[in-house]
Amino acid sequence: MPVSTDPGITQDELRLAARNHGMPLEALRWPITPVGLHYLLIHYDVPLVDPAAFRLEVVGAVGQPLVLTLDDLKARPAVEIVSTFECAGNGRALLEPRPVSQPWLNEAVGTARWRGAGLAALLEEAGLASDAADVVFCGLDRGVEGEVEQRYERSLPVAEALRAGCVLAYEMNGGALPPQHGHPLRLVVPGWYGMTNVKWLSEIRVVTEPFAGYQVASGYRVRQTEDEEGRPVTRMRPRSLMAPPGIPQFETRDRIAERGTHLLEGRAWSGRAPIARVEVSVDDARTWADAVLLRDFDDAHAWCGWSFAWEATPGDHVLCSRATDESGDVQPLEPEWNLGGYENNAVQRIRVHVD
Amino acid sequence: MPVSTDPGITQDELRLAARNHGMPLEALRWPITPVGLHYLLIHYDVPLVDPAAFRLEVVGAVGQPLVLTLDDLKARPAVEIVSTFECAGNGRALLEPRPVSQPWLNEAVGTARWRGAGLAALLEEAGLASDAADVVFCGLDRGVEGEVEQRYERSLPVAEALRAGCVLAYEMNGGALPPQHGHPLRLVVPGWYGMTNVKWLSEIRVVTEPFAGYQVASGYRVRQTEDEEGRPVTRMRPRSLMAPPGIPQFETRDRIAERGTHLLEGRAWSGRAPIARVEVSVDDARTWADAVLLRDFDDAHAWCGWSFAWEATPGDHVLCSRATDESGDVQPLEPEWNLGGYENNAVQRIRVHVD
Repeated sequence: MPVSTDPGITQDELRLAARNHGMPLEALRWPITPVGLHYLLIHYDVPLVDPAAFRLEVVGAVGQPLVLTLDDLKARPAVEIVSTFECAGNGRALLEPRPVSQPWLNEAVGTARWRGAGLAALLEEAGLASDAADVVFCGLDRGVEGEVEQRYERSLPVAEALRAGCVLAYEMNGGALPPQHGHPLRLVVPGWYGMTNVKWLSEIRVVTEPFAGYQVASGYRVRQTEDEEGRPVTRMRPRSLMAPPGIPQFETRDRIAERGTHLLEGRAWSGRAPIARVEVSVDDARTWADAVLLRDFDDAHAWCGWSFAWEATPGDHVLCSRATDESGDVQPLEPEWNLGGYENNAVQRIRVHVD
Repeated sequence: MPVSTDPGITQDELRLAARNHGMPLEALRWPITPVGLHYLLIHYDVPLVDPAAFRLEVVGAVGQPLVLTLDDLKARPAVEIVSTFECAGNGRALLEPRPVSQPWLNEAVGTARWRGAGLAALLEEAGLASDAADVVFCGLDRGVEGEVEQRYERSLPVAEALRAGCVLAYEMNGGALPPQHGHPLRLVVPGWYGMTNVKWLSEIRVVTEPFAGYQVASGYRVRQTEDEEGRPVTRMRPRSLMAPPGIPQFETRDRIAERGTHLLEGRAWSGRAPIARVEVSVDDARTWADAVLLRDFDDAHAWCGWSFAWEATPGDHVLCSRATDESGDVQPLEPEWNLGGYENNAVQRIRVHVD
């Protein structure tokens, strides 16, 4: 991935930003993100899929290959989970130098209620071969990336694919899966960064060698140079975001708030361990105080609400929040740079002018 | 509005692009744009509105002021229309020098089925004063723009507000209005640019002097300099867009297609007169041939489908489409520049490499 030291976003980056979009941060006020406000990152094009003609194939190192219609999947016991998704590239455009790709600021996040068939039961039905290594999930979307023509494909190690909670989802927020979220079927892997949740899922292929496709071996790796093998991007690091208080200035999105008490509200999540603590700073990360946590969901990988009463005094302020998960991992104040601009969970800063 | 000759998009523009978004052009294949793929331009924040507490007030120069609940509006005869919306700033980021605001390329468009109460009947019920001049529509969204703190407010001349077809919509595509499209109520004015369709509509105010609020007197005016009064932006100029054929290159969004016949598909619209003709060029606007028109909707201000069979030969091609409406207005090859970057309906160019 090329990097840029120019503060100006390129036309290539703008073309990506014009079609993909973050969740406007005021939507943190909804525990379940309304359809259309959830972030979207689509590598290639949204395919137009006829649900009646759709088939999911389970192939490769299995005892019994399967070909399933959507009705076959709906006839299986349904599983429902609330899961927070965050793009692995969230925060990329805040890095210096800037990796040139989808130029996310802070907003590439959303939470939905997903309903579908359990993945583990389906794999057990197909019967995994004893030497099965990875499970590859293939979408119907095709494009060229890093000079490789490809379908979008991502894999999980067998143990991860079998653990409780992975869903082959055909519903989002109580309605049919929308086209842009993978209609008619997508994978949902709670706790992992968003690229894992393969959309327009049409094939599950069990392989006996570690999968070396582009989106695992080249894309979504944390490394400093192209020559380095690096490590794969997997589970979400802890992060918190705040719904900006007051009202926005249109041109800059800076905030203007009235003096007095504001209830600051936001959400926090981690794909690695439950959220243990959220702290708020109203003085640009010099001092911190604990926020009140509000656990809306039992689901381990749904975000957790928080609130904090702020006594706003006239002047310019910088507000921040910082999450810590039960593994002890805490958001850093400054990002850790890498070539692809992944996993930037540095603390958000919101500038507010109080009259 | 400031302008920039720097090709790089600024951080201010990026903050707007990260939250607002266009319609990915492959979504032109749907006659009704699915929720979440329709373009969005939100000046301030999406407000969180309690529909039970919501009231629409009709005030000002009327015989009988009204205060209506959502149920009151739903008890009235329902009107349903299909209407194409396009942002007045669509194409702004393709202008040189570039007006610095939401940096749209070509994608700020979408078509929805709107259902609600007719505006004209409601205004007749309230009884317009004989000296009524403008009808002002006020949203619940607040912010600072051009240094003016404001609610989002736009007006229509009385004659325009009374003409058939304006709807106070509480449904979109058969479901409740989503938050980002104005839940629980928005104005829909067929044929006008998108800024006219005031979201989160909570007040209709009839005034006896021409309305001089920011979004009419300062914003949304076609002019060359800040000193000039200019003319207001009103109805959409003719425009056509094409769903790009083949598959995309991720980083550049350029297209790669196979040799052979491709059915090029797109849509065209005008807010001024029905679409009379769509032409396609496969040689970068040097020669043109007529596309086949497919009128999906009876609604005068819904877009019109078109298709064209393209015999793709190896090499690099630039594809274009051009709409003409029944008033004789035709899309220009090059944009007409203005300070706000409005009404840029210049012909779209799609680069395609055929193997």
